[in-house]
Amino acid sequence: MTERREPTYVYSEKQVAEKSGIARLFIDTRTRLNQNVDQADNLLVKRFYNLDHNTYLEGALPAKYKELMGLVASACLRCDDCINYHVIQSYRLGVTRAEQEEAINVALVVGGSIVIPHLRRAYALLTELYA
Amino acid sequence: MTERREPTYVYSEKQVAEKSGIARLFIDTRTRLNQNVDQADNLLVKRFYNLDHNTYLEGALPAKYKELMGLVASACLRCDDCINYHVIQSYRLGVTRAEQEEAINVALVVGGSIVIPHLRRAYALLTELYA
Amino acid sequence: MTERREPTYVYSEKQVAEKSGIARLFIDTRTRLNQNVDQADNLLVKRFYNLDHNTYLEGALPAKYKELMGLVASACLRCDDCINYHVIQSYRLGVTRAEQEEAINVALVVGGSIVIPHLRRAYALLTELYA
Amino acid sequence: MTERREPTYVYSEKQVAEKSGIARLFIDTRTRLNQNVDQADNLLVKRFYNLDHNTYLEGALPAKYKELMGLVASACLRCDDCINYHVIQSYRLGVTRAEQEEAINVALVVGGSIVIPHLRRAYALLTELYA
Amino acid sequence: MTERREPTYVYSEKQVAEKSGIARLFIDTRTRLNQNVDQADNLLVKRFYNLDHNTYLEGALPAKYKELMGLVASACLRCDDCINYHVIQSYRLGVTRAEQEEAINVALVVGGSIVIPHLRRAYALLTELYA
Amino acid sequence: MTERREPTYVYSEKQVAEKSGIARLFIDTRTRLNQNVDQADNLLVKRFYNLDHNTYLEGALPAKYKELMGLVASACLRCDDCINYHVIQSYRLGVTRAEQEEAINVALVVGGSIVIPHLRRAYALLTELYA
Repeated sequence: MTERREPTYVYSEKQVAEKSGIARLFIDTRTRLNQNVDQADNLLVKRFYNLDHNTYLEGALPAKYKELMGLVASACLRCDDCINYHVIQSYRLGVTRAEQEEAINVALVVGGSIVIPHLRRAYALLTELYA
Repeated sequence: MTERREPTYVYSEKQVAEKSGIARLFIDTRTRLNQNVDQADNLLVKRFYNLDHNTYLEGALPAKYKELMGLVASACLRCDDCINYHVIQSYRLGVTRAEQEEAINVALVVGGSIVIPHLRRAYALLTELYA
Repeated sequence: MTERREPTYVYSEKQVAEKSGIARLFIDTRTRLNQNVDQADNLLVKRFYNLDHNTYLEGALPAKYKELMGLVASACLRCDDCINYHVIQSYRLGVTRAEQEEAINVALVVGGSIVIPHLRRAYALLTELYA
Repeated sequence: MTERREPTYVYSEKQVAEKSGIARLFIDTRTRLNQNVDQADNLLVKRFYNLDHNTYLEGALPAKYKELMGLVASACLRCDDCINYHVIQSYRLGVTRAEQEEAINVALVVGGSIVIPHLRRAYALLTELYA
Repeated sequence: MTERREPTYVYSEKQVAEKSGIARLFIDTRTRLNQNVDQADNLLVKRFYNLDHNTYLEGALPAKYKELMGLVASACLRCDDCINYHVIQSYRLGVTRAEQEEAINVALVVGGSIVIPHLRRAYALLTELYA
Repeated sequence: MTERREPTYVYSEKQVAEKSGIARLFIDTRTRLNQNVDQADNLLVKRFYNLDHNTYLEGALPAKYKELMGLVASACLRCDDCINYHVIQSYRLGVTRAEQEEAINVALVVGGSIVIPHLRRAYALLTELYA
């Protein structure tokens, strides 16, 4: 089986939060809400979170492309929180803005104009991150 | 045909609103917005609301399990307002927190990680209701 | 091929924004966010926007019915921004409130109760526009 | 309230089935499967079917445009049976092929390339119906 | 934490396959296709299958209601294979036909008329299983 | 702007069709159905097809990763035809089976167990292509 390992990040989550107000608000809200989830200590939820984490490790595919795949899936399924998460993760792994835009274009063409309001908000985050 | 009847609630909507700020905000907003819908008096909308109401009555299945089914459907289809509604209804019918979490787990596994942001917000409501 | 042409609007976007606070907030936010998209100048995004624009021109079907079709699609796919957009466009093309409600009913029946929270918010906008 | 009435069909379902093999297979399969549903005699299902029927009657909007709205919703939500149903209903109400194609275009742009496989199958039906 | 254990089935999968041709075709096809998946031996897929299995065990909620929740989710998300699976599992756990129909009604009302083609096919399976 | 160019394929569509019966059936059916679409010569459809084609060209991201992104989007949105298309395109661009499986894992985790029936069918195609 393909060996899996943690990816190497170019930026920490803290650096991202310092650079972008949109990212900071997203990260702070997620942290606050995850406290309730952590305290509940639900076994299946923890296992799902663990499985989710393992999906994006370095493997047969570089982690950065899997984060962009997560971004495409999130944009097609139209989840702003998920889009923010994968845009930030991709940024932290050194993905360029042009690469992020091309991934979003795949989501736009597959998912249609219903993706546009999410694309607009994603571009606001991209603008702050790549300023 | 199976006889249908109104379920017996353990808590009133008012009691729920007093216990949880998240629930109160949801209930107040829904009440305010429903006034526009009521005033419009659209026949098909009223019939749909009526059909919707009848779906969750006591019947072949206990009302509490149907509210949890509504919760699973809402979480899979990723509608925060609908999740709030069914979490509150389930709570009012005496569903335990452990039961609510298991229903949400079904939605998480069927619907995938895209459900997680909604799960986080649902847990914030669960934490207030079952404090 | 069917000739296409710009529809004739009864109201300008500015008039809509003056009449409804909900519409104004939507239009202002969209304008602000579209600035990022415009500056990015992504070729495929611009081409998609152009294709999107051409879809709703006067053609074999009157523009007003295509805007209502966009409204039905938006409500079924549950995108508040898209619903706001097509409600406003329909209003600008002279669609009556009764016509808007019937289009929303198609979405409600096809898409189910999961559409109801969006219907509530759409009715708030309808109430302001047709006051 | 807007008066509702049955629309006047240009073609019967039988005429449609004679003209198109795709339509015939769809109608026959639906008829056969609906027998199970009819025999089950489930009250809520019957009420939903009734509500569904009433949604597409002549009203504030002409029935033909509401069938096309049903087509757009069905294509966006990617249900081949529903697409077949609304293409046939629209045809029976005298909708032209150019009008059907424009409605499908709204679904294509709103729903994206994921709609294309359904568009291909819809065009096969259009080709038979409008031969 | 709530203890989890395998549910007790009233009928084996073999008995179900003998009673219903629709069930047999579904089970045989799934078995055949799962051979490819098993041979691939993908670690994350196996872990997901395992998590999926654990979600429906007896726990805070009886297994039969969780299978019905899986049915509601599957019908709302419109997956015939998933609907077949959960209808069969529910049947194997002693769920009555009236209970299955009520669960499907929740999906119909939440998910709308787009669920109807799947409801028709589900009723064909119900008719065979409960003959 | 990033220059775009056609990717270099390792295998032709004809070679794929010779290697896999599933691929051949998909390609033949698509070709047959596309004839109706081509003959209709609908301007907006042609423009959408063109936009779709341009989205997957070599650009800021290598074409092979964009095809895998299309695969993830298709699996999350659960369209077998689209999955087949992107699995074949990825294979033609030299993507390994391990890479295809990892992309499908992203879709499985994001989209949930509802993706499993499509994963099973995708694995049948993978097994034939990589035999």
